[in-house]
Amino acid sequence: MTPQPEQEQERLSTVQLGERWSILPPEERVQGFQMMDRSEADAFFQSRTPHGQATIVMGVPRAERRLWMRLLEPDDAADLLQEVPEEARPELMQLLDEPTRREVSALLAYAEDEAGGLMSPRFARIRPDMTVDEAISYLRRQARNSLETLYYAYVLDREQRLLGVVSFRELFTAHPGQPIREVMHTDVITVPETMDQEIVSRIVSEYDFVALPVVDADGHMKGIITFDDVIDVVEEEATEDIHKLGGMAALEVPYLQTGFLPMLKKRVGWLSLLFVGEMFTAAAMGHYEDEIARAVVLALFIPLIISSGGNSGSQASTLVIRAMALGEIRLRDWWHIMRREVLSGLSQGVILSLIAICMVGVLFWQGVFQSHDHHVFLIAATVASSVIGVVLWGTVAGSMLPFVLRTVRLDPASASAPLIATLVDVSGLVIYFSMARVILHGVLL
Amino acid sequence: MTPQPEQEQERLSTVQLGERWSILPPEERVQGFQMMDRSEADAFFQSRTPHGQATIVMGVPRAERRLWMRLLEPDDAADLLQEVPEEARPELMQLLDEPTRREVSALLAYAEDEAGGLMSPRFARIRPDMTVDEAISYLRRQARNSLETLYYAYVLDREQRLLGVVSFRELFTAHPGQPIREVMHTDVITVPETMDQEIVSRIVSEYDFVALPVVDADGHMKGIITFDDVIDVVEEEATEDIHKLGGMAALEVPYLQTGFLPMLKKRVGWLSLLFVGEMFTAAAMGHYEDEIARAVVLALFIPLIISSGGNSGSQASTLVIRAMALGEIRLRDWWHIMRREVLSGLSQGVILSLIAICMVGVLFWQGVFQSHDHHVFLIAATVASSVIGVVLWGTVAGSMLPFVLRTVRLDPASASAPLIATLVDVSGLVIYFSMARVILHGVLL
Repeated sequence: MTPQPEQEQERLSTVQLGERWSILPPEERVQGFQMMDRSEADAFFQSRTPHGQATIVMGVPRAERRLWMRLLEPDDAADLLQEVPEEARPELMQLLDEPTRREVSALLAYAEDEAGGLMSPRFARIRPDMTVDEAISYLRRQARNSLETLYYAYVLDREQRLLGVVSFRELFTAHPGQPIREVMHTDVITVPETMDQEIVSRIVSEYDFVALPVVDADGHMKGIITFDDVIDVVEEEATEDIHKLGGMAALEVPYLQTGFLPMLKKRVGWLSLLFVGEMFTAAAMGHYEDEIARAVVLALFIPLIISSGGNSGSQASTLVIRAMALGEIRLRDWWHIMRREVLSGLSQGVILSLIAICMVGVLFWQGVFQSHDHHVFLIAATVASSVIGVVLWGTVAGSMLPFVLRTVRLDPASASAPLIATLVDVSGLVIYFSMARVILHGVLL
Repeated sequence: MTPQPEQEQERLSTVQLGERWSILPPEERVQGFQMMDRSEADAFFQSRTPHGQATIVMGVPRAERRLWMRLLEPDDAADLLQEVPEEARPELMQLLDEPTRREVSALLAYAEDEAGGLMSPRFARIRPDMTVDEAISYLRRQARNSLETLYYAYVLDREQRLLGVVSFRELFTAHPGQPIREVMHTDVITVPETMDQEIVSRIVSEYDFVALPVVDADGHMKGIITFDDVIDVVEEEATEDIHKLGGMAALEVPYLQTGFLPMLKKRVGWLSLLFVGEMFTAAAMGHYEDEIARAVVLALFIPLIISSGGNSGSQASTLVIRAMALGEIRLRDWWHIMRREVLSGLSQGVILSLIAICMVGVLFWQGVFQSHDHHVFLIAATVASSVIGVVLWGTVAGSMLPFVLRTVRLDPASASAPLIATLVDVSGLVIYFSMARVILHGVLL
């Protein structure tokens, strides 16, 4: 009986664990994690999201928790604590060493999505009156303790106010005896503690900084935000927008790790709202019961007409929402966008109306419908002219709704395809039946 | 006559230029740029996207182009060249100095969206037999030339094969006389030249590397990909997915910088396809003309029924697409997702059907419709049961379509809200009229 087959199985499950992680139930994740050898487990733990790390820490026996908590940098420990139930926090805090605990407490005072909630308090600090050589050997000592990044050194006065910054490359290439005061840059880009993380990520991605200093209202340096936090923010914000664009509330944890009921709540709320909104289409159509009774053929094109408004509106709102999120367009650009989209909506409407004329002709000619093939031309004209109106209106409504939402301080990303479709469906019906009354008056109606 | 007012105006427009950049026509961008003083202009130029840099370089007088081209790192120069018209490239290439030109040519051989197209050939290289102190002073000399990053030093053999990597922090804290061979890590995570940029960005964001080495099939090191390229990729890929989810082809340049005709092309293609798809709803309804003629009240709920399928499908497809893009779910997880979504679709359907029963009751009670209020209960039952069927089907179709698209090697993000809506509209009609035939048989039909 050799232990090899079992070992083989263990190694296999280690490799697979990372891949299968997201679809495993929490207990199996922890079981798999505990089968890893120590160095593998270290690397694996570090590469997990705060949510994954919380699952592990809460899943392992109490005696092992200290070990894992102490592996974390203060900002990561703060993120983990925000993922565990309120009542478990004090116990986990006690596991940290005293200085880290103080740092973590300070970080927990900030909201998760503001600059203070992202930053690490461990940055390299030097004084303006050191020489370059003194600064390098001072940093060498600091580097032995854990520092979040060794890319920039921040020059602080005795009150911890930020005076300037110097990159390691500059320290390396400067004259050894020169004072830091002469080497440092004083035109530092800083962000306030309460800045929204989305704006912070825009600044980092525009200027390509590895780290950005966070200062309070009096210029005291509080910490740094590093590029890796920013990559996470960019992904998080995109996920949030994409979920909203799909017509639902954004999930806070990954899809597969969201429980059935919380997930249902995120989805069914919007779904019900949209459903109630669509009830107005039934009410609107109540006004046209006579028309439908007299010309049933009109009912056949209802889904076609209203969907063309929803689809063109969805395109327009998506374009505007993403451009807003990327900072390409601002609130005051609305008139510029409006003119562009009117032109765009008109062109699209005309192209679709030409397709409509051909298709309506083909459908009648092929005998798909049972009635009224002696009015084909008038019916095609009704459909085609409605399509122009509906597509134009859908495009304008879709492009303007994000501006309206932003003006009233709601998230523009809520102007989802389903919401736009619901909003333009009623007006689509009104446009269609109004056209029909004009064009088919005295013929079918 | 003091020059002050004019200066004031110039400074104002410099500040505004960054803000207004995206909505200005190209000529005005270049004009504004040329009004900046040199140091401002440098920083401004560097912070632009490749597309913005190309606008500037092509807009300034020929004599000034060399100055701006030479400010660029080889990878940025390659990106810029991919933004200018084919015929302008040779001239711009000539403006670069000889070594940079060679590096840029090598980079241009890669596709824009693969690892080779993202990488910079300027990385810090050392030999395994150097001591720590020798390595530091060797790097100090390299740092005077421009290096993309001074965060990691890569240890190469004489054939430029990658042996290991050492971070600057490690060099700093290691014993000065120790050979690099003993300090370096040999378990380096590398990416091949042809790896898709989306996968590269997943790796960087999972492991939080400042830079990732790119190697060819024989282990020769070709360059590094740095975090700032990855932030751009993450944003680019999210934008691409969001545009597709809005039911259109992804724009390659920012919304406001896309010309009218290219924009129309990106939008009207999908719009026409969806429109032709919706024509099938007209054909499907042709089968139910008799039913509509006999019970016009059935037509009133058509938009409500089919939109509930589209909306629930849009939620499901959005969730699955984003989870796929983030690497949370894989192709083989389809069965797991299917079971989850069937349960989810059923619950949502039941909740919406209860709302439907109340709303239909209220609409009839309020006298919104002109007919058939003596069959309210049966009509409500028809609507409610159809809603359950349509929502269930929409959810399942929406969650499975991304898997189908991926299986046939298409982009799952093409399973947009408008596409799902179009696909489930026909089946929604069939479900609705089939329910009506069963429930209203002998009463209204």
